[in-house]
Order: sequence, then C-alpha cells, then structure tokens
Amino acid sequence: MTAESAGDTGTDDGDSVVYDLDPDCTTDDLERGQPYLAEINGIVDYGVFVDLSDDVSGLVHESVLEGTFRVGDELVVELEAVRDNGDLAFEPAEIDVDDEYDVESISHEYSLTGTNRLKSNVGDQIHLEGEVVQVKQTAGPTIFHIADEHGVVPCAAFEEAGVRAYPGTDVGDVVRVTGTPEHREETLQIEVDGLSTLEGETAEEARERIQQAIDERAEPHDVEPLIDWPAFEKLRPSLREVAKLLRRTVLEGRPIRVRHHADGDGMCAAVPVQIALERFIEEVHEDDHAPRHLVRRLPAKAPFYEMEDATRDLNFALEDREKHGQQLPLLLMLDNGSTEEDVPAYETLAHYDIPIAVVDHHHPDPDAVEDLLDAHVNPYLHDEDYRITTGMLCVELARMIYPDLTDELRHVPAVAGLSDRSKADAMDDYLELAAEEGFDEERLQDVSEALDYAAFWLRYNSGDQLIQELLRIDADDDERHEELVAFLAERSREEVDDQLEAAMAHLEHEDLDNGAHLYRIDVENYAHRFTYPAPGKTTGEIHDRKIEDTGDPVITVGYGPDFAVLRSDGVRLDIPRMVSELEEEIPGGGVSGGGHLVVGSIKFVKGKREEVIDALVEKMADAEIDEALSSAAPIDDD
Amino acid sequence: MTAESAGDTGTDDGDSVVYDLDPDCTTDDLERGQPYLAEINGIVDYGVFVDLSDDVSGLVHESVLEGTFRVGDELVVELEAVRDNGDLAFEPAEIDVDDEYDVESISHEYSLTGTNRLKSNVGDQIHLEGEVVQVKQTAGPTIFHIADEHGVVPCAAFEEAGVRAYPGTDVGDVVRVTGTPEHREETLQIEVDGLSTLEGETAEEARERIQQAIDERAEPHDVEPLIDWPAFEKLRPSLREVAKLLRRTVLEGRPIRVRHHADGDGMCAAVPVQIALERFIEEVHEDDHAPRHLVRRLPAKAPFYEMEDATRDLNFALEDREKHGQQLPLLLMLDNGSTEEDVPAYETLAHYDIPIAVVDHHHPDPDAVEDLLDAHVNPYLHDEDYRITTGMLCVELARMIYPDLTDELRHVPAVAGLSDRSKADAMDDYLELAAEEGFDEERLQDVSEALDYAAFWLRYNSGDQLIQELLRIDADDDERHEELVAFLAERSREEVDDQLEAAMAHLEHEDLDNGAHLYRIDVENYAHRFTYPAPGKTTGEIHDRKIEDTGDPVITVGYGPDFAVLRSDGVRLDIPRMVSELEEEIPGGGVSGGGHLVVGSIKFVKGKREEVIDALVEKMADAEIDEALSSAAPIDDD
Amino acid sequence: MTAESAGDTGTDDGDSVVYDLDPDCTTDDLERGQPYLAEINGIVDYGVFVDLSDDVSGLVHESVLEGTFRVGDELVVELEAVRDNGDLAFEPAEIDVDDEYDVESISHEYSLTGTNRLKSNVGDQIHLEGEVVQVKQTAGPTIFHIADEHGVVPCAAFEEAGVRAYPGTDVGDVVRVTGTPEHREETLQIEVDGLSTLEGETAEEARERIQQAIDERAEPHDVEPLIDWPAFEKLRPSLREVAKLLRRTVLEGRPIRVRHHADGDGMCAAVPVQIALERFIEEVHEDDHAPRHLVRRLPAKAPFYEMEDATRDLNFALEDREKHGQQLPLLLMLDNGSTEEDVPAYETLAHYDIPIAVVDHHHPDPDAVEDLLDAHVNPYLHDEDYRITTGMLCVELARMIYPDLTDELRHVPAVAGLSDRSKADAMDDYLELAAEEGFDEERLQDVSEALDYAAFWLRYNSGDQLIQELLRIDADDDERHEELVAFLAERSREEVDDQLEAAMAHLEHEDLDNGAHLYRIDVENYAHRFTYPAPGKTTGEIHDRKIEDTGDPVITVGYGPDFAVLRSDGVRLDIPRMVSELEEEIPGGGVSGGGHLVVGSIKFVKGKREEVIDALVEKMADAEIDEALSSAAPIDDD
Repeated sequence: MTAESAGDTGTDDGDSVVYDLDPDCTTDDLERGQPYLAEINGIVDYGVFVDLSDDVSGLVHESVLEGTFRVGDELVVELEAVRDNGDLAFEPAEIDVDDEYDVESISHEYSLTGTNRLKSNVGDQIHLEGEVVQVKQTAGPTIFHIADEHGVVPCAAFEEAGVRAYPGTDVGDVVRVTGTPEHREETLQIEVDGLSTLEGETAEEARERIQQAIDERAEPHDVEPLIDWPAFEKLRPSLREVAKLLRRTVLEGRPIRVRHHADGDGMCAAVPVQIALERFIEEVHEDDHAPRHLVRRLPAKAPFYEMEDATRDLNFALEDREKHGQQLPLLLMLDNGSTEEDVPAYETLAHYDIPIAVVDHHHPDPDAVEDLLDAHVNPYLHDEDYRITTGMLCVELARMIYPDLTDELRHVPAVAGLSDRSKADAMDDYLELAAEEGFDEERLQDVSEALDYAAFWLRYNSGDQLIQELLRIDADDDERHEELVAFLAERSREEVDDQLEAAMAHLEHEDLDNGAHLYRIDVENYAHRFTYPAPGKTTGEIHDRKIEDTGDPVITVGYGPDFAVLRSDGVRLDIPRMVSELEEEIPGGGVSGGGHLVVGSIKFVKGKREEVIDALVEKMADAEIDEALSSAAPIDDD
Repeated sequence: MTAESAGDTGTDDGDSVVYDLDPDCTTDDLERGQPYLAEINGIVDYGVFVDLSDDVSGLVHESVLEGTFRVGDELVVELEAVRDNGDLAFEPAEIDVDDEYDVESISHEYSLTGTNRLKSNVGDQIHLEGEVVQVKQTAGPTIFHIADEHGVVPCAAFEEAGVRAYPGTDVGDVVRVTGTPEHREETLQIEVDGLSTLEGETAEEARERIQQAIDERAEPHDVEPLIDWPAFEKLRPSLREVAKLLRRTVLEGRPIRVRHHADGDGMCAAVPVQIALERFIEEVHEDDHAPRHLVRRLPAKAPFYEMEDATRDLNFALEDREKHGQQLPLLLMLDNGSTEEDVPAYETLAHYDIPIAVVDHHHPDPDAVEDLLDAHVNPYLHDEDYRITTGMLCVELARMIYPDLTDELRHVPAVAGLSDRSKADAMDDYLELAAEEGFDEERLQDVSEALDYAAFWLRYNSGDQLIQELLRIDADDDERHEELVAFLAERSREEVDDQLEAAMAHLEHEDLDNGAHLYRIDVENYAHRFTYPAPGKTTGEIHDRKIEDTGDPVITVGYGPDFAVLRSDGVRLDIPRMVSELEEEIPGGGVSGGGHLVVGSIKFVKGKREEVIDALVEKMADAEIDEALSSAAPIDDD
Repeated sequence: MTAESAGDTGTDDGDSVVYDLDPDCTTDDLERGQPYLAEINGIVDYGVFVDLSDDVSGLVHESVLEGTFRVGDELVVELEAVRDNGDLAFEPAEIDVDDEYDVESISHEYSLTGTNRLKSNVGDQIHLEGEVVQVKQTAGPTIFHIADEHGVVPCAAFEEAGVRAYPGTDVGDVVRVTGTPEHREETLQIEVDGLSTLEGETAEEARERIQQAIDERAEPHDVEPLIDWPAFEKLRPSLREVAKLLRRTVLEGRPIRVRHHADGDGMCAAVPVQIALERFIEEVHEDDHAPRHLVRRLPAKAPFYEMEDATRDLNFALEDREKHGQQLPLLLMLDNGSTEEDVPAYETLAHYDIPIAVVDHHHPDPDAVEDLLDAHVNPYLHDEDYRITTGMLCVELARMIYPDLTDELRHVPAVAGLSDRSKADAMDDYLELAAEEGFDEERLQDVSEALDYAAFWLRYNSGDQLIQELLRIDADDDERHEELVAFLAERSREEVDDQLEAAMAHLEHEDLDNGAHLYRIDVENYAHRFTYPAPGKTTGEIHDRKIEDTGDPVITVGYGPDFAVLRSDGVRLDIPRMVSELEEEIPGGGVSGGGHLVVGSIKFVKGKREEVIDALVEKMADAEIDEALSSAAPIDDD
C-alpha cells in the first residue's frame, strides 16, 4: 500500500508515512502531530472542509492554505486544534506531497468489552469480538450466540420479524458486534446495533486470539486425585484430555449428549459429569437456559450403543440444528461404548461432525473403535482392568471439569466400586473416604441397591432429581437420604428374594468334567417376567449365592426363549470365542453375542435354543479352570 | 423498651409513654396530642427541624422552644399543625424529659390490599401479607407465589438476571410485600418493590390470621347429596374431611397428583374431582396457568399403586420442586389405594412431605395402610361395601369442593354404578336422576362401555378432552354425545363378541364337587392378544354369560402363561387365603396375588402354571357355596 | 326502512331517498348534493349545530334556516361547504319533509387493508375484514386468527387478563377489525382497537367475497407432471381436487394431520406433501409458528387406520380445540386408508367436523369407505393399480400445492417406485429423471433401503430431519447424502442377511398340487424377534430369493404364534376370500385378516395356529396359477 507522493520536509516521527483513517474511525483514533489523508468536501470563503472518515471532519483555514482546490481533492493534514464546541481545525501536514510516502490504514480502535464484563455495562453500547457458535432464527430476531475468550453470550439482531439478519454470517464465523447488553426476560443478551464478519487476517488474528484463550481456558483444573492410586495414574493423562475436550466443547457452545450404562456404576459415572458440565456451562454462558439446552443425559437401553439409540440421537441432533441453529453435539459414552458392537452406531454418526468420547471399563475392542473415537479412556488400554470402574474415573473427570464439586462427590467412587463389585486395591481407600462423609459400607451398599432398583422402575427416564437424591449429590437432608436408600435397598432385596425363591427350586445342577459346577435356570419359565429383578440380575444373584455355597468354580447360565446370560467364577470361558464357534457349528442358529472371559450374553433363534445351550455346555465342560477369574465385572441386567 | 427519662407533668393520655415512629412510618401514622421521639437534623434562625421517621419531618418554631440544641439531639414533640402546603409544625410535648417514660415503637400501619382486590389496584403500589407457597427462580426475576386470606398471587422480584432475590426468604415464610399489581403477558402479578420476611410475634400473628382464614375458606360447601341415601350418610363426614383437605391444599398452593383406577368407575370418580379442583384453583390463583400446573390426573397402570408409578411420581415431584420451586404434591388415590399392595409405594413417598388421601371402594386392608394415609374414605370402613362406588362418592366430593359443577354431574353416579355393576339400593334413584337429564339406562350403559373402550386405546394417556366428551361434562352437543357413545359402545360390544367367538369354543367346563360350574379359558392361546378386550375383561364377559346361561353358582378362571384371573358368583373363594396356601404348597411356584372373596388375580412362574391351576381348582371344589356372593365388584382388566 | 316524510321538490338524484350515516361514518362518507338525516344538538345565535354521525357534525347557519327548532329535532341537510379549518357547514336539503321518503343507511366505507399489506403498515391503524379461524384465549389477551382474501393474521384483543374479549365472536364469524399491526416477539400481529361481528347481508357479502377469494387462491398451480404418463393423467383431476382441498384448508386456518404408511413409498408420499404444506402455510400465515402448529406428520402403526390411532388423534384434536381454540383438523391419509379395515376409525371421527382425504394405491374397498371420505385418490378407482405408487402421486400433489419444491423432488418418485417395486411403464422415465439429478439406480435403491431401515429404528417418531436428509430434500451435502444412504443400506442388507442366514435353514418346502412352490417359515422360532428386519420384511426377502432361485410360481408364508404373512408370485390367492372361508370353517379360530390377490396377512388365536395354517395351505394348493401376478405391491412389515 504505497501511494505516489513524497514529502519535502521530514515530520517528527513518520516522514514517509501518511495515515488513512477507516470510515468507522472517530476522533479517538486521531493523534496530534500525525499526517492524515483527507478529502475536500466543501469550499468556503474562509477555507476548505475536509473529511478524514465518516465521523472525522473539520476546517482547514484559508490562512494556512496555499494553491487552489476542488471538492474531491486529497490533502494530507494534521490536527491543529479542537475548538470548545468540538469542531476540529486542521492544517496541511508538513510533508512534501510530491515525495513518495506509505499510506497506512488506521482501524478504529474498538475498546472491546469481553463477555465477562457485560453485567457492568448493561444499557451501554459496547463492542465484542467472538466466534459464532449458534444461530437461532426466531420468528422475531435472529439470535447469534457468540463465544469470546471469556464466555458465550446471545446477541439479538433484528432485521424484520422472522427474517434472518446478517444472512452472510454463520456458525464458525468470527464477528465484531456493536450492541447493548440488556436484561431479557430470561437472560442477559446483547441487542445488536451492528455486526460485521471479520475477514482475512483480521479474522485469523481474532480467531487465533479467541482459540488460544479458549484453549487456555479449556485446560482442566489440576486436582489431586481423591486417593493415592498408582493404577489410576496411568489413566490420568488421557482422562485429562477428555476433561479438556469437554471443557473446550462447552466453551465453543457445542451441545453434549451423554449416553451411559443404566446401572449403578454407569450412574455414578454419568451424574457427576453431567452436573460438572452444567455448572461449567452456567459459568460460561450468559443464557441461563444453556445448561438445560446443552447437556442431556440418557441411559442406554443396551450394554452397547444400539442403532436405535444412534438413529434417534442423530435425528434429535439434526432437529436441534434445524430448529435452534445448534451445532451438532459431542457424544459422550460412559461405562459403555468400547466394543465392536458399538461400531455400526459410531459409523452412522461419523457421516456428520459429531465427535465421540468414551470413558469405559468394559473389555474393549480397541482395533474396532479407535478410528471412530476422538478420545477413549479405558483401563484395559493401560494394562489395568474393570476394577477401575467408570464411576471412579468419572468422579475425577467431573472434578477436573469443575473442582468445586469435590465435596459432594467423595463418597461416589465407593458406591461405583461396590455396584460393580470392584476388587480394586483402592477400594479400601475409597471406603475410608466415604466413611469420613458418614457413609459406612452398609449405607454405600444401600445406595448401590437403591440406584439399581430405582433405575429399573424409571426405565428410559433419566430421573435426574431422584437419582441425584439417591446419590446424595446436591441434596439437603442426610437423615432422609440414609432412610430412603435403606428402604429402597430393602425393597430391592425382598424382591430379589421373592424372585429367587421361585427360581432356586428349578435350578439345574451339573458337575462339569473340568470340575466346575454348572447351574442352569430357565428364567422365562421359572422367574417372574417384566418385573424386578430382570433376568440378568436374577442370574447374577443365583450365581453369587452358588459361589458362596460351594466355594468351587461355578458357571451359571440363565436362559430365556432366545437368549442366555452367562457368568463364571473360576472358569475361563472366553465367550466371544464360544460365540464364534457356535455361530459356525449351528447353522440356522442365529447365534450372536458379546462379553469377555467370564461374563457375557448370547442370542439365538428361539427354535434352536436347546441345541445352542447343549453345545455351549459342552464347551464349558472343556474350559480351563482358572480360580483367579471372577465375574464380578458388570453385566447387562436386561 | 424503656428509656431513661421522666416527665414532670402528666400528659393527657399517656403520661409515661413516648412513641417512636419506625423509619417507614408516614404522616398517616401520626396522631394529634401524642408525644413522639424526634431527632434534630437542622437548626435555623426561626427554630429547629426535626425528623420523626424517614418521611415525617417538620419545624419546631423557636417561639415554643427553650434552651439550646445541637443537631442530633433528641426531643419529644407533638404535632402542632399541618400547613396548607403539607408542612408539619411540631411543639415540644408536655412531658418532663427528666421523668422516666416508656418508649413504644409505632409500626407503619400498612393498609393491606388482599389478593381479592388486586384487579382494582392495577398500577398502584399496594401492600400485601401472606405465606410464601412457591419460589420459582426464572433466569430473569424470582417469582414468589404468595397466599393470603383470599388467594394466591405471583410476585416478581428482580435482583439481577437469574439471581435469587431475597435469598433468605423461602417457602413457608410469612412476608410483607410492597409492590404494584400489573398485567403480565399471561397473568396478573405483583412487581415487587420491597419484601420483608416477618419474624417473631408479627409473623406468628400474620400466619395465624392467614391460616385461620384459609381454614375457614377451606371449609367445603354444604351441599345436599344428589339423592337421599342413608348408607352414604355414614361416609359423608369423612368425605367432607377430604374435601376440606383438598381445598386447603389448593389454598396453600400445593400441587395435587391424582392417580386413579383406569376403568369406568375410576374415571367417573377422578374426572369430576379434577374439574372441581381446576375450577377452584382458577378462583384462588391469580396465575392463570395454575390449574394446569397444579392438578394432574393419571390413570394407574395396575389396580394398586405400583412402585413404578411411585418412583416416577416422586421423580416428577422432585423435578417440579427443583425447576419450578413448587411444594411437593399431595397424592390423591381414587378407586384404588386401599390395600396392602399399595404399602411399598406409600412407604417410598413417606420419606418426603407428600400427604396421601384415598377414596376407594375396593376391599381395604386398613391395618396396613392407615398409618400411611392422611385421609381414607372407604365404605368398608363403615360397614358398607363396594356397592357405594368411588364415582358416586367422588361426585359428592367434587360438589363439596366446587358446587357449581352440580348440574354437569347429575348423570355421572349412574354411569359409575353401571360400570361397576353396583347393586346399591340407591341405583334406582341415580338412574332416575340421570333420566331427568336425558340419560336412559341404555345411554348410560353406552357411556360406560365407551369409557372403557376409549380408555383401553388411550393406554396411559389421561385423554382429558375425549373422556370429558364421553362423560358429557362441560360438553356442548347432546345429540353428538348420544351418537358417539352409542357408536363406541357398539364397537366395544362387537370386539367383545369377536373375542368371545374365538374363546368360547375353547372353554373347558367341569362340575365341581360343591356343585358349582367351573369354566376355564386359556386366554393366551384362545383369545387375541394386545387388543380389546384384555384378558381380565374377556374372562369377566365369559363369566357373565355363563351365569346367565346356567343360573347356578359359577367360577371362571381365565389364565395366561403366568397369571390367572378369577371370578366367582355364588362360591366363597377367599382368594387371599388361597394365594397364601398355594404359596406354601407349591415351592418354586412364585405364587402371589390379590383380591377378595369372589374376585382376584394370581401370578405364578410360567413353568408351574399347570400345577398352580390344578391346586387352585381343587381348592375351589372345596369352597363353600354362598349364593348371595356376586363378583360384580370391579376387577382389574389387564 | 321507510320514513313518513316526502319532499316538495325533487333533488338531483334521489328525490325520495334520504341517507342516514352510521355512527362510525366519517366525512369521507359524505357526498355533496345528497340529503342526510341530521339531529340538532345545539342552538346558538347564528344557527344550529347538527350531528350526522359520531364524527360528522357542523353548523346550519341561521340565514338558511326557517322556523323554530329544539335540540333533538331531526333535520334533512346537505353539505354546503367545508371551511379551511375543516369545519362543515350544512344547509337544509331541498326536500319537502312532509313527503314520504326512504331512509337509507350509509355504512362507513372502510378502506380495508388486506393481510398482504400489513408489513408496510406496521404502527398505523388499519381496518381488516375476515373470517375468524381460531380463537385462542391466552391468560393475557384473546387471540383471534383472522383469514381474509390474502392470508391469516393473529389479532390480539385485550379485555382483562385471561378474560375472553368479544365473547360473542367465535370461529366461523365474519368480523371487521380496527387495529394496529405490530411486531411481537415471534410474529406480526394486529393489536385490536375494535372488533365487530358483521351480520346479515354485510356479513354474507364479506363472507362471499372472502370465500370467493379463498376459492380462487385455493386453486392449485397448473404444473406439468414431471414425466409424460397417460395412466397418471386419469388420476390427475382428482389429485387436483385434493390439492385444492388442502390449499383451502390452509387458507381457512384449519390444521392438517397426516397419517401415512411407515414404509419407503409412504414416506416418499408424506414428506413432500408435509413440506409443501408447511411452505404454503408460511406464505399464508403471519404467525411464524403456524407451520409447526398446523401440520403434523405421523407414521401409522398398522397398514390401516387403527382405532388406537383414531382415538388418540381425536383426543389431541379436542385438546387443541380446547387449549388453543383451533378448528378440528383435516385428516390426510397417505399410502393407507382405502380399505374396509379403516371404517371403524373413520366412523369414529365422523361424529365431528373432521374432513378426511385419502391418497392411496393399495387395493381399495370403495363401497366401504367412499361415504366417509371427502376425497379419495386411488389408481384402482381408475382401472390402474398399485404400480402408480402413492409417492409418485404425492410428489405431483406437493407440486400442485407449492410448485417451487419441484427441483428438490425430481428423484423422489423413482425412490417411491423402487421401494414398492413398481413395475410401472413410467419407472424408466422416473429413473432417467433421477439420473439427471445424480441418482443412479444403485443410489436410489440405497435411499429406499436406508429409509426403511431408519424408519424401523425411529419407531413411532416421525423423524422429520433424518428422513428429510435420507430423502435429500432441503439438504445441503450431496456427497454426505450418498455416503450415508449407502452406509445405512449396507447395514440394512447385512442385518437382512443375518436374519435370513438363521431363517433359511428352517424354511420348509412343499410342492403344491397346482405346481407352485410353497415355502413356510416360523418367524417366531427361526428369526430374531424385536429387531430389524421385522417378520413381514423377513418373509418378503425370503420370498424374493425363492422367486429368483426357482423361476416358478412361489408362495411364501411367514408365521408367528398368532399371525401369518402371505406372499405369492404367480398364484391367485385372493386372500380376503380365504380369510372369510377360514373364519367359517374353523370355529374358535378367531381368524381375521386383510390383503388382496397375492399379498396379505392373517391373524388367529395362538392355540389354533396349526389348524389354520394347514387349512390355508390346502386352499393354496387349489389356487389358480396366474404367472402375471406379482406380490411386489407393498406389504406391511410388522
């Protein structure tokens, strides 16, 4: 940007530069002693009037002018004086206009007001720069949600009722907004006077600045783990990455959909993370509805991410984008999502910009899922196992996101561990920690049973408030909590007893060749259907009693018309291998299934049940005894 | 509150008392001839200016003053004159300031404006005292719902967007509000200028006054029963107590959740009460959304209050408290809720402040439930029986709550009676009453069938409008009503005929030793599943036909894979006893069930069906013939 | 309306008529030279003041007056002059007041502002005439939705919060509104200053004018069919009638409820019509929420209109009327609704003002349904058949309603055709048309499979956004679309393969006497339950493979515990006849069912399955071979 002119005499501090004010510059951008490009817009007896920008004009008195001028001519001027009434007087700059000089644009120096300072500027016009993270067209104004270094604020721009304002501006653009923060019925929002999409370098600079700030702000808090636990340390860095990803997701205004295993550990994992995210969103977003709109927790119907859930999640995501201009969500899978069975659902979402993060402690199929995930935390990826439960991990995750939750969560890892019968070394420490909060082991066990029982009756409802009460997070009455969980746990145990009273009489026993006991129970015919406990839990409870009764290796098979639930303690079943073999050996059996060494479930067609189960038992009789193996790992209860 | 001073001469009517005006007192609180404590706030040539309160100031002329004064000195003055321009002139009170005198505080005498006079004060500042019944934090203002002697009004207090105003004030507090009634988009509400929580005696007095007024207003209307019926008179006082409890619940702003048996009688009970409550709420609450937010009618899935329903009800209640600051609800069980089977659900709710009232006519287990209920109306508690149907009771209950409904309800008890085949003496009177409204018995029967049929298809939806149409409450087109119920009743009968056409061919007959006929039908194999009529109704219809065919004592058993529905006419089965015996005699049978002498249902595990039913039939063969016994009492249709 | 007076001299153009201005007339309604009835309201030195209407008054100067007058006397005057300041001067009309003359009322000539000109009159008072199409009582103002010749606009009238304004005015009335168009948060609405219900002739004239305009505007667009197809031409006029009915329904503000077959063709039919209606509503209604509130698309659970759906639809319609003052809806049945099985549901709705239109290509029972329908388009009514699929018809219907959709729909008929395996001549043209849009046959097939697969997982959710994505209507990313449908189609095929892998091993084969192959599959025992593909599709896929394998006539029966799905290629089964015969031959079989020559389904009671199927197979063995017959027509997949 050079212009063909040159000054004859040097000026103080810019002999070869002349400044050109941008049209939106004001007198604030004017400095004394600097040469500015001006255009003559009027000629009068006593001088000429010049424009330096839309807002900056003034007189050059005839006494300081030489030569003749026409309207439209350019002059290089400097400020001479500001009159009492605000009028400006200019004089020709001491520059030889025949010399070459550089012309340098001057942008208006906006004094930007970050979203952190809106409350103290209510009613005053301010400027804001940020990235558009949501564009919601109401039938009135268009609402741009804009994220800057400090937070996210809704900005209402009105073109005409229901007509998209600034149609050229969309999610992902970096914009400069001039407007006035106002209280609206339900929120603080900026009433937009002007909005411009930044472009080129300016945009890049702003984006970089914002992204860098978001990046810094996304950094999780460095919280010390609740207990000292070397095994956990191995997972901590990757958990930290998930915390950062989630914080960044909040800062960027993207919604988060949490799908979790609907059991005790799954709820101990999902509820703290949900609350941590909600509180962080509350901190970041001026729109007070944001926590409700941006986080949704949903129990999963199966122990994996079903196509049914994925189809619905995708449809909801697309509808939220269409109706509310939201970004597509991040999917957070908790206590669930590490296996090959999740792949079709993940692949469906992969056609869209929907990041996926998984925190799970079920035996993973990393080769199958890794390419589809943006983050994956699983103890098996670090030579640890299910004993580090997802609930234990997620309490730390929640604390990394929002450390102030810590005091409400100290007892939760112990509940998670008991729910999944974790034999982790750390259990003692967790139990002690819980005890300090008034939770002895009996009460923790009650919480675990009560969670399981309530979740069963809530079915697909996430039951936010009741589950929070049972977990005693954000709850007020400690005594009531203790009584309530004791009551529900007692109910649960009675109903399990009722179920087992019927079932145990029909339990078939067999001594396998490998020395293990095999117990079979027809849960369709000898257990109550559609009630608590469901077949999986019924089978598990029978299994546990038999382990205690016998002290020997035990396998238990609970079967219905077209499914079987398997549990082993002390026998290495390797269920995925058994399933593959059965699939091959029994044509027309429709065998499929999942699980790992000692826990799993198998499906088949109803008409081949006998054949499938007989073949399965034969395999079990050949399976290797390994007394260290325990089925205490979580199992699907449906 | 004594001060160290004493007067030398007596004053007219308070020689030893000086009054001290509270800061918010106005000239209205000032009485001539009374001595007031004043503080000098200015001294001028012609006298001193004194303050008696923030608003009450005036001049004491130098001509009436003796001695010297400094700003800040106290004086005891009385009112001398009010000038034309409103200025006040005081003179020293005739009291010897060296004597001891009592200082008595004077509160500003607020002229309270009751919620009944808000409409005529729109736009004017008023004062209101009442009890806080709901505190809803919006993301804008905090909304306090305040109940006084006359009604409930929302009061909006704004601190900062989304920030809780008056955080020290909560549900249950008694407060004084200064504010301005305004029309808001959807309601009349008070914009709060100031709110103070009353304390100590003031609070107690106000609370007592309000409670006494609410207590008076809660009194039900003394309506004459629709018909003269001595049996009903026995229940009337306890029904009146329920009416009072419900009216008080409305006046106190607590929500009401109605759970009712999803059959004809249950709907005849629940719908009138729902409408009566809605209308009364409309009268009491300024917020026009209140009827929708405060009453919810839900058909129960089972003939008792299931844990599933209780779990969900509790979660919703906690969510409404969390999200809308509502009080926990009162639960009203109708045509349901009197038995031992309801206990676990009641015990779950008992951990919270959730009162429970029951109006039912099923055979109760008073020992089991009484301690858990705040009210229980049941004819069996008064030596009456199911012939007084819940619908009959609840029409009177609805009228006690809101008598203006009477004209819309005259035909409803007859529908209730026919639905439950009541053989009450009063049926003739009810039929006559209905006939006066244009409902002959055929039409009433049509209404009953249509209700049953529509409720089946509506499943768990309460179907408010359609059910109101079928009951012809608040409906406009009598001819259409008649045609519609005739059409639906006809459809219902056709579908019953279709079902029975298949089933009757497979009915197994047996002559029992006691001389009764036993009919058995396998409803799983010989009736259509998942369609109307459901197994219970199918069994009942078969039973009714066989009674008519044979004229003899008849027992009918409709059984599926894991359940049986039982009906007897003329044989005393005593089903609870049978269930207990079977439970003991058949280990692993998983037998449970409920019912009474001639109606009941039994559950068992699928694999023990034959054994259970054989044992059951043996017992039936031994049961005592008692021709007076009829199974016409309501039975679960699922 | 004659008065007892007569003029002595004739006036120019009305010697025996005197005009009487209505109270709301203004000077605009005054014509020079015409005699007007006036009333004296004041007498002064220099004349008398007269009123001609509330707004029209003036002086009759004493110089032109004769006789004496009292206030309240009538005069007949004509306009003499309009002074500079706007004052009017009158003089006695040249009429003999003793003669008889007719008095004719003059209404104020409102300059009406149509709903098409509201935007340019925001903030100015305007007048509007129209028909009330919805009256919504909010707890604030009453909202009258008013339709005129150009559109529908909400008009807010405020009486008192929550109190019905203009209670005498209801849906169907023709009204004149004076008010001011304003932007409200979410819409443009008129703030009502005054509203009067027109009566008598005025109302009739206005109604006729509006109806005529609506009638004209309801005329569908004359779009050329996408392809040249003589068979379609026969249906075009009746399709045009449906388009007109739907457009009129929109113009009259009545909601539309679309129920459609939940398969590929059904979605290709319903989605374009839904979008066309939404866009047209957006054009017609000022309320921007109207598209969402006035159109609802719902997949039907069965291949006919079930009582369950009708009961719920009716309840929702009544609730929308109660809560939102909406008219009852029009029901639009698509790819569904032509048969006797639909009659009970239609008869239920027939008790209300709920018009029903059907576009279907399933074999109809015109005698059964015709009287119940307001419109019925079906190729069979024009000697055509299922090969003209509903999707093909409805793409044209959508274009008649909203032609601008055309470019987004060109590929849709080909998808519809492939979904229903249409062998229409037109398929080649449709495929070519689709190819021009970048859809080769493989991609079209993928869309069809993907639709079917996604609809299965969405269950009863209409899945608006996902289905639009899969149909690529209003979608943005062509490449993603192609990949996504390919992926889902592939998943679908894999799951079908899995299902068939199990099932094919259990397929029973029989050579029938008539030379056809009979294949039977027990889908309850030899296929996975509750997963994709459902029994109907499983049976269809087996059937298709066997046709290809054998090249001979093939019948396939897929049966479960109480149902069977039938498919035939090359054998004339006439399923309705078979059902009637079985119903008679097998007492207690509970046989019912539907279908046509080569496709159908049968229900029976579980316990009679063997007998029913054996008898069915016997009939099939006797059935006539007709190699032209193909079962490619759509079949229920449940």
